[in-house]
Amino acid sequence: AKPFGLIVGPCQLESLEHARMLAEKIAEACAATGTQFVFKGSYDKANRSSLSGKRGLGAEKGLTILSKIREEFGCPVITDVHEPAHCAMAAEAVDVLQIPAFLCRQTDLLLAAGETGRAINVKKGQFLAPWDMDNVAAKLASTGNDKIMLCERGTSFGYNTLVSDFRGLPRMAETGYPVIMDATHSVQQPGGQGTSTGGDRTMVPVLARAAVAVGVAGLFIETHEDPDNAPSDGPNMLRIEDLAPLLATLHALDTVVKPR
Amino acid sequence: AKPFGLIVGPCQLESLEHARMLAEKIAEACAATGTQFVFKGSYDKANRSSLSGKRGLGAEKGLTILSKIREEFGCPVITDVHEPAHCAMAAEAVDVLQIPAFLCRQTDLLLAAGETGRAINVKKGQFLAPWDMDNVAAKLASTGNDKIMLCERGTSFGYNTLVSDFRGLPRMAETGYPVIMDATHSVQQPGGQGTSTGGDRTMVPVLARAAVAVGVAGLFIETHEDPDNAPSDGPNMLRIEDLAPLLATLHALDTVVKPR
Amino acid sequence: AKPFGLIVGPCQLESLEHARMLAEKIAEACAATGTQFVFKGSYDKANRSSLSGKRGLGAEKGLTILSKIREEFGCPVITDVHEPAHCAMAAEAVDVLQIPAFLCRQTDLLLAAGETGRAINVKKGQFLAPWDMDNVAAKLASTGNDKIMLCERGTSFGYNTLVSDFRGLPRMAETGYPVIMDATHSVQQPGGQGTSTGGDRTMVPVLARAAVAVGVAGLFIETHEDPDNAPSDGPNMLRIEDLAPLLATLHALDTVVKPR
Amino acid sequence: AKPFGLIVGPCQLESLEHARMLAEKIAEACAATGTQFVFKGSYDKANRSSLSGKRGLGAEKGLTILSKIREEFGCPVITDVHEPAHCAMAAEAVDVLQIPAFLCRQTDLLLAAGETGRAINVKKGQFLAPWDMDNVAAKLASTGNDKIMLCERGTSFGYNTLVSDFRGLPRMAETGYPVIMDATHSVQQPGGQGTSTGGDRTMVPVLARAAVAVGVAGLFIETHEDPDNAPSDGPNMLRIEDLAPLLATLHALDTVVKPR
Repeated sequence: AKPFGLIVGPCQLESLEHARMLAEKIAEACAATGTQFVFKGSYDKANRSSLSGKRGLGAEKGLTILSKIREEFGCPVITDVHEPAHCAMAAEAVDVLQIPAFLCRQTDLLLAAGETGRAINVKKGQFLAPWDMDNVAAKLASTGNDKIMLCERGTSFGYNTLVSDFRGLPRMAETGYPVIMDATHSVQQPGGQGTSTGGDRTMVPVLARAAVAVGVAGLFIETHEDPDNAPSDGPNMLRIEDLAPLLATLHALDTVVKPR
Repeated sequence: AKPFGLIVGPCQLESLEHARMLAEKIAEACAATGTQFVFKGSYDKANRSSLSGKRGLGAEKGLTILSKIREEFGCPVITDVHEPAHCAMAAEAVDVLQIPAFLCRQTDLLLAAGETGRAINVKKGQFLAPWDMDNVAAKLASTGNDKIMLCERGTSFGYNTLVSDFRGLPRMAETGYPVIMDATHSVQQPGGQGTSTGGDRTMVPVLARAAVAVGVAGLFIETHEDPDNAPSDGPNMLRIEDLAPLLATLHALDTVVKPR
Repeated sequence: AKPFGLIVGPCQLESLEHARMLAEKIAEACAATGTQFVFKGSYDKANRSSLSGKRGLGAEKGLTILSKIREEFGCPVITDVHEPAHCAMAAEAVDVLQIPAFLCRQTDLLLAAGETGRAINVKKGQFLAPWDMDNVAAKLASTGNDKIMLCERGTSFGYNTLVSDFRGLPRMAETGYPVIMDATHSVQQPGGQGTSTGGDRTMVPVLARAAVAVGVAGLFIETHEDPDNAPSDGPNMLRIEDLAPLLATLHALDTVVKPR
Repeated sequence: AKPFGLIVGPCQLESLEHARMLAEKIAEACAATGTQFVFKGSYDKANRSSLSGKRGLGAEKGLTILSKIREEFGCPVITDVHEPAHCAMAAEAVDVLQIPAFLCRQTDLLLAAGETGRAINVKKGQFLAPWDMDNVAAKLASTGNDKIMLCERGTSFGYNTLVSDFRGLPRMAETGYPVIMDATHSVQQPGGQGTSTGGDRTMVPVLARAAVAVGVAGLFIETHEDPDNAPSDGPNMLRIEDLAPLLATLHALDTVVKPR
């Protein structure tokens, strides 16, 4: 099996300068372990807890930034889409389209995303069992697109809490598609701060280590140079300076479970 | 307080004749208790468990049927919308727009629905706590539209199961908006039948009775003349002949908890 | 069907005077609706959240108080037991033995309780499904004792929270044994206050009304003249002065669902 | 940090010969990686799902077998206790007393176990949050005994299912006591087979690998030469021949996360 790959970047795109600065630090952090990465950034936060949450830069600015990062760093880029009509446009700028967890059962969005021919990373809804993703993957695959990734990001567990069921990772892998562990959103406490979502970034390495030991194809980690002042998902984002040491541990664990 | 109202109809619209037949039986069932009803029907099942599930008649045919039912029976009608662009069109044909549970955090959909000025029935996401609906209602209300209904339809509870927390009904009512209990979808076993959703219609009266005793403003009940052969949600739909006796019990319970 | 009965009293016994005072107020509150009650009191809180929680008066004092209440008020009395060796002794003083939820799978305790010939009220463990109580009841019934009551008191739902699944009430009733709704412990937030258990007594009437509308054989409600200063379960206990008006509503609901 | 230790053995003791045979195979499996193990066996299954489940050999026979294993193999031994009165007796035969999950809040049992001076492995109740174990540990520590181990074995997640929250492992470790992951009982489906408990042994290595990567002090794994015909917990027990290869992987993971 191949070494784990990384989907990594800020929660939302802030500016070209910011994306470039983070991409540089990410590239540096990944270099030591030779970790392949896909740069992630959202241009529209379409489902904030409350109306007061920042929405983002918008499609035009956001997709331009992602194109530039791809060009300058030679890395693939990924962004999330929220309506069928947005898929084709986003697909021109990015290598991977991401389907948000809340929307993972919306048939039209899945079909529109699949039809672009781009790779698709679909998050497992917080309301779904691992085996429910079989049907989700089948909707995507019906378009003839088999570049599908299934992404665990936590399951509803009582109110304002998610839990990560690691038995779900091998279960989703039975589909034959690569399984990604989103170690950032799995530590969310949705709605846990009244009008925004809480979390606990000290648990990101915990879940990332567990997932790599179980044997995932990839990890999804959001990172920021100053998470506490980031426009969204601050409580869950890893500080950029903590990325390299985490990757070193993960790389060593990965080597144990994927004999090469 | 006013007697409870009823949102009632088939899961998905099948034909004008079928809708008319059901509406007649519904009107008859409601007459004895003087229950006010809103006729419900979906023209597009946009998030079926699997691709093989029937999608429905489509917007044009579906909305025409709903208009006719409204005209012929003099009752308000409701349908669900799935994309911002569909709201205005649907609002021309119906009195109430419904926001599906999976989509209850999609800001653009909420704003587009609110801006139509129509009443909005928003389902609580299976992944939300009752208090999380404060922010959802605030998104709708930001459009100046205060004709908002908040609808309980079950919360994720382990895999492929929902549970109804009746403490959530008074909690949601603290918003000041009327609270509706969806006694049909709350008994779903999502994904519980592999490629479709299971359920247990014998539990519909159980949850409906409990909700009325707690004191809701309305109930949401899907009904069909032959649920086991209905194109969707068969396991949860009430047989139409069971509606009148259930309403009789509910009416008596309602009278106890809402002294007039 | 018979009108609902009531298991009612303080969480823990405090003194004969206190028990007598409460029993008087309870008898008065029940008189208006003709509600039959069983007086409840614990002599040993054997599983407090932390060691600093008060344990209670002990078996000798506690059982003497319960005997006196039975004699003076002519009502049956109930207490909970925690070890097989305690059952015979407690059975001499009380009419009903109660098996705590955490202990509902302990075979020796169930058998010892059953063998006393006394009626048994067994709480459903927070970790059990309604159908799991079939096996629990069968353990009791194996002793030849069929005076069994099955009591719902909430199910684990995430951390430090319980949820009451009202579908469980008719499911447990399929055993043929009477089903009791514990409206007090179902609103607990176990461990929710660090070293003690929280709760929300405003939800007691909500769950009690729902349960009666569903059609239970009995309710379990803890009450106190000053819950906030009670030695245990204060946050969940009903103020004694709120009992009579609640019973009036419950009685009216019961009459609706159990035509006589 | 020290390498992880192993609590390992059959679910219930069957005979001296059987225990000896298993202990030999276990010792062999552990030798390659130098894994220290404690031999585990139950003499009484006090809380079987139903009355028809086998209870075990009883205290006298069971404790004699454990003493012999300790003597012959020079390894510490562990068994579980269910009533305060049993603790002293069991403590004469074994090195570690185990408190079952359902009983982890029973104050008298904890105190009696603590007072023996033996090491105590207390399982986290399926109904508790990780932080609720602070109070449990404090009850034990109040006896002056600080040889405490806290053991994760799954948390209630809907009906008949447990989930393992790996964030709980570092949270419990904040107490300062060693944390053990029970990879056997965490994969139970309690009551999932009607009158007995189901499970999925293929998930044992998944959870064990995740726990070691997170950094636990020890693992608890039940094993058997023929799990499908074992008197209890068959669906969850690891085949004895799968132990050595699993330990090899776990040892390598442990070396990564505990630099020595």
